[in-house]
Amino acid sequence: MKSASCLFIALSAVCVSLAIAEAQDPLPSWNDTAPKKAILEFVEKVTKEGSPNFVPPEERIATFDNDGTLWCEQPMYFQLLFALDRVKALAPQHPDWKTKEPFASLLKGDVMGALAGGERTMLEIIIVTHAGMTTAEFEQIVKDWIATAKHPKFKRPYIECVYQPMIELLAYLRANGFKTFIVSGGGIEFMRPWTEKVYGIPPEQVVGSSIKTKYEWRDGKPVLMRLPEMNFIDDKTGKPVGINSHIGRRPIAAFGNSDGDQQMLEWTHAGSGARLMMLVHHDDATREFAYGAESKIGTFSDALMAEAKKNSWTIIGMKNDWTKIFAFE
Amino acid sequence: MKSASCLFIALSAVCVSLAIAEAQDPLPSWNDTAPKKAILEFVEKVTKEGSPNFVPPEERIATFDNDGTLWCEQPMYFQLLFALDRVKALAPQHPDWKTKEPFASLLKGDVMGALAGGERTMLEIIIVTHAGMTTAEFEQIVKDWIATAKHPKFKRPYIECVYQPMIELLAYLRANGFKTFIVSGGGIEFMRPWTEKVYGIPPEQVVGSSIKTKYEWRDGKPVLMRLPEMNFIDDKTGKPVGINSHIGRRPIAAFGNSDGDQQMLEWTHAGSGARLMMLVHHDDATREFAYGAESKIGTFSDALMAEAKKNSWTIIGMKNDWTKIFAFE
Repeated sequence: MKSASCLFIALSAVCVSLAIAEAQDPLPSWNDTAPKKAILEFVEKVTKEGSPNFVPPEERIATFDNDGTLWCEQPMYFQLLFALDRVKALAPQHPDWKTKEPFASLLKGDVMGALAGGERTMLEIIIVTHAGMTTAEFEQIVKDWIATAKHPKFKRPYIECVYQPMIELLAYLRANGFKTFIVSGGGIEFMRPWTEKVYGIPPEQVVGSSIKTKYEWRDGKPVLMRLPEMNFIDDKTGKPVGINSHIGRRPIAAFGNSDGDQQMLEWTHAGSGARLMMLVHHDDATREFAYGAESKIGTFSDALMAEAKKNSWTIIGMKNDWTKIFAFE
Repeated sequence: MKSASCLFIALSAVCVSLAIAEAQDPLPSWNDTAPKKAILEFVEKVTKEGSPNFVPPEERIATFDNDGTLWCEQPMYFQLLFALDRVKALAPQHPDWKTKEPFASLLKGDVMGALAGGERTMLEIIIVTHAGMTTAEFEQIVKDWIATAKHPKFKRPYIECVYQPMIELLAYLRANGFKTFIVSGGGIEFMRPWTEKVYGIPPEQVVGSSIKTKYEWRDGKPVLMRLPEMNFIDDKTGKPVGINSHIGRRPIAAFGNSDGDQQMLEWTHAGSGARLMMLVHHDDATREFAYGAESKIGTFSDALMAEAKKNSWTIIGMKNDWTKIFAFE
């Protein structure tokens, strides 16, 4: 009688647990397709004490690219849209821009013409709009822009153009003892003012590209001046370098969406023990955008696709694997 | 009757709390002098909800210099002693060192002669002993050294030459919601292999000087090669730069011991709200070492002392403020 009632209680407990688990699906915006299964299996494996795949909490490092992985990156990188808005705002102080490229084209609204100079032009625009002020001043400029500017297609603030399934994934990993980091080609100080509120990722867990800063005194106070000189480009082979420099541990899970993320996934993959590498594929022109090998922004080349297949990295197809892309849908 | 018994219960609770507080002094290796009082008052102030000085947990950032603040730095920086041991270990592969300075002097045991070339010589020794291998290989070299090498005066492993009062302070701050960081002029990858075990500070919360690394493939595996080129010097004006780059928030408490820490304390001081800035002063020749303005290692100049007085930064005198310096005493 006693053991029977114990069994009954045990079974009830199992039923209740199952019911709670079902009621509290941690990834409700994910379809029950391969990517979701891969995530759930991986997390169960590394968190189960005594399992051969168990990873102690302090080593549960997960790194996320930002543009195209956590938030949208079309029709162009949001930081570039920010820079273009800054050019307009700064134009009255630079009358020479009316005739000087790339600014003249930008001010006429010819963005594609302005960017024809390629990466060097882009860098020039970034330097002009991102340097020459203190870190505190730049932070305020970003905060003001992010609070007011809107995405041209979705007509929403940019920080609403974040992928709901990835927000759930970040929270789910943290609930399982993971420390989540951003490792982005984007500017570190362009992201930090809002990542904590939007992703739950604090400034000290954001890794990104940066320009040099200099400590000096201004009006009786110490400031950090932003200099017109690149410090670090956190893209491609720069991502493992940035991970090592900022985190000092190898991730056990990494999430990206483009050629710029390949080395981060390789570096994660090459560690020992259980690993999870995933790539978001933008294949939903209706709900978001569809692009890949041919796109200049967020290129997902055939070579990357071949690498993913060879290494069994999981491809997340937005169209089929996500029930919802944005919270505002 | 009812209110009287309530009062009795309330008083008992107060007595019990006081007794527990006394029994569990979080800083038992600190005398009840000004520095300990300043720490306790500061922590109470910033953690008391509703107080005008309250600081939310995510902003409770505390930064610590390492050499001379958390562990000993005499008779010279431990990393330099490590480099000298590496020169001896590498000598058989470099027969030319027998006649080439600074290596020839080092190998003859004439450390002071070898270092006569100043900072440039020191850098040459660091580059030769710290570059040319993968990050994983360097980590293993550091782990092996730290497990076996012993301090010339204390005849103990270097990781036992850490200040017990500071270990208590780190733990006390973390117990009160602080995130503790190292911000050291020392090499970031020289510290990371042991800071978690010794200080409870994980690799991602260590900021330090670094050489450049490069991502490449070797024997079918991706590695990060350590290059013979400085990347960043995290000292003096570099400390606020390193803090901004790695942490992205201004500390509310900062602890140092030498001229190299002045700018970190200034930067911390210049923020708004309650702040705590402290400098360890080495004035105990019996239990540790006594040095200050005249020392080349860990210089505490008269100018720094004047700044500390002007800004009301707290000086921790090891002799009078610490009941115990090392756990092994």
